[in-house]
Amino acid sequence: MTNSPYIKQYLMTAGPTPVPPKVSQVMAEPILYHRAPAFVPVYARVLDRLKTVFDTSNDVLCFASSGSGAMESAMVNLVHPGDKIVVTSAGKFGERWKELADAYEADYTYVDVEWGTQIDPAEVDRALSDTPGAGVVFTTLSETSTGVIHDVAAIAEIAHKHGALIVVDAVSGLGAAELHQDAWGLDVVVSGSQKALMCPPGMGFASVSQAALDKAAERPAGRYYFDWNKTAKGQRKDPPSSPFTPPVSLFMGLDVALDMIVTEALPVVYDRHRLLGRATRAAVKAHGMEIFGLDDEAASVVTAVSVPEGVDGAAVPKLMRDKYGITIAGGQSQLKGKILRIAHCGYFGPFDIITTIAGLEMAINELGGSLELGAGVAAAQRVFADAGVTVGA
Amino acid sequence: MTNSPYIKQYLMTAGPTPVPPKVSQVMAEPILYHRAPAFVPVYARVLDRLKTVFDTSNDVLCFASSGSGAMESAMVNLVHPGDKIVVTSAGKFGERWKELADAYEADYTYVDVEWGTQIDPAEVDRALSDTPGAGVVFTTLSETSTGVIHDVAAIAEIAHKHGALIVVDAVSGLGAAELHQDAWGLDVVVSGSQKALMCPPGMGFASVSQAALDKAAERPAGRYYFDWNKTAKGQRKDPPSSPFTPPVSLFMGLDVALDMIVTEALPVVYDRHRLLGRATRAAVKAHGMEIFGLDDEAASVVTAVSVPEGVDGAAVPKLMRDKYGITIAGGQSQLKGKILRIAHCGYFGPFDIITTIAGLEMAINELGGSLELGAGVAAAQRVFADAGVTVGA
Repeated sequence: MTNSPYIKQYLMTAGPTPVPPKVSQVMAEPILYHRAPAFVPVYARVLDRLKTVFDTSNDVLCFASSGSGAMESAMVNLVHPGDKIVVTSAGKFGERWKELADAYEADYTYVDVEWGTQIDPAEVDRALSDTPGAGVVFTTLSETSTGVIHDVAAIAEIAHKHGALIVVDAVSGLGAAELHQDAWGLDVVVSGSQKALMCPPGMGFASVSQAALDKAAERPAGRYYFDWNKTAKGQRKDPPSSPFTPPVSLFMGLDVALDMIVTEALPVVYDRHRLLGRATRAAVKAHGMEIFGLDDEAASVVTAVSVPEGVDGAAVPKLMRDKYGITIAGGQSQLKGKILRIAHCGYFGPFDIITTIAGLEMAINELGGSLELGAGVAAAQRVFADAGVTVGA
Repeated sequence: MTNSPYIKQYLMTAGPTPVPPKVSQVMAEPILYHRAPAFVPVYARVLDRLKTVFDTSNDVLCFASSGSGAMESAMVNLVHPGDKIVVTSAGKFGERWKELADAYEADYTYVDVEWGTQIDPAEVDRALSDTPGAGVVFTTLSETSTGVIHDVAAIAEIAHKHGALIVVDAVSGLGAAELHQDAWGLDVVVSGSQKALMCPPGMGFASVSQAALDKAAERPAGRYYFDWNKTAKGQRKDPPSSPFTPPVSLFMGLDVALDMIVTEALPVVYDRHRLLGRATRAAVKAHGMEIFGLDDEAASVVTAVSVPEGVDGAAVPKLMRDKYGITIAGGQSQLKGKILRIAHCGYFGPFDIITTIAGLEMAINELGGSLELGAGVAAAQRVFADAGVTVGA
């Protein structure tokens, strides 16, 4: 087959992720005025269902922004120049907290752990001991650049022992990796629309405890668009109202996507994601390839795989995309060319993994590898069969 | 006919505005990875065509945000606490500049003119003379709350005479009211996607001169998500690249909408908008109703009408919406209940105006008015006929 622009496409990156057809369809409906009686219940329902996904009684504040905008909201509401904080990083998105801390001139202690490893709560404990008066710890649930899931519940416990608040980046984690904001005592959790929430990019979320809102309100200057209390005030009105024009079409889509998530039920959603991760790990290990980072049942968002010896790591995603229409990600920054990342957060099922593994096997062999075609596919099939996967009507 | 949820809807507010079917359709296509070869040309084309609409050689910086986010970008990149600036206001959106100046603790001189009137450049001149060292003037092209178009070219000349930069809010104006950024010497123009650009809300734009970028770069602290130089650096790469995940589906839509605008050609687009305004004014004046603000040929974005004596102003939009499916806006803040606002910025044609006037006549009469049904419609028809309107295939 010659190259065709109509080759069927499979998007296996960790954001943006595929959007279910009924989410796409509702976003193509005529635009609603954001104060219209037809939009208000959509908005109210989204605000309510987001609480379910964050497992919180907080207001989940919504912004027209990328996930990084929601991250910025946490820095700009809680931290002023010279404030002492602790920033953890174990990858590209941990570094984003550091960049934000730099931009807002925080006085931060940096817990910078090796990419692919987990943040050790004991290190956070030491950092907080070394930083008397640190008011906030910034950390990450799912580090998209490595696939590692961090134990944010344990880090929260340490933060609270030192009287600090905790802020968790769950941009790629929310809805894919287990998260129980209130039970785990997470003061602030930020996320975005374009990962496991199965929507296009363009919405950022910050689920903020009353304690964090109060801390922000003490010093209201230096922010406007991302001011938490301004947005909370609007969302607490009856009916709820956004201080700025909300991205109405994205909200229409999110309403449908959240309905799918609560209908599937979160424990089932988490199980599905863990199963997709398990099958992906089994497939690559069947070829003797190594999981980068942790070979961890909790790794339900992205599976990172070390590139086999003798294969050009940057060429694999390119060939898979250009020849087979399957888009996976390579490594970022220091991991460029060294790892491959297969995402499975959001609208993914068993046969997305099987397709991806089949394409991966073919591409690696075309680039000088010598995999037994189908061996990884079979390993994934066995995981799915063992789990008794039944895709309902 | 009893009330039906399927009554046909007509959205006549100044944002969000209706989206053309082919824009809606392309946004329902499968999501693309933002670094994918299929998305990169879309992104590059949008960046290029935005320059045409702003009539500039600047980089037009794109943010996932509402229009207010783009406004904030101007304040946070150009103004630090204690900086002297001049803020003009003649309505709700002028006040937004003031709120931003307050939030960022600027030392500002406030040119606060009566709602419904035009900002007098001589007043800006006096304000700048009274504020030695003022570095920036913040003003508005189209004041959505009153329908008034301000003479930003004249204000720019005054600002430059005093050595100040000018920042123009063209959120509702861009693509509906004549704007020539470079010819008029506008250092910064900000806008949003959900007005005359015929897209859903969720994208903010800042077209920034190199002088303004350089001024921002002198003091890089205190911002991150809305940092102009960070975004400019990404957009100037080959191929252009966004520092944060762009709202890919909205960009797909904007690409199609901008293609429609450049195909129609901007002079024709402006003529169409002026014609819609002229017909709307003729219709309401045929009933002896008064134009609120200026009865001005330049008022091509929103037509504001004073509510006739004896009619409940707040009830008119509600009845039009609930009974006839036509959503117009009432007045905001001090104008609540006093004016009606009919928007015609974006995907609007003659028969949208005729529909709206017909519904307006019926609603006002049902609320105690005594209009001659059809007289306003006829006046609008005459304007369209005189203009030789021909809607192409």
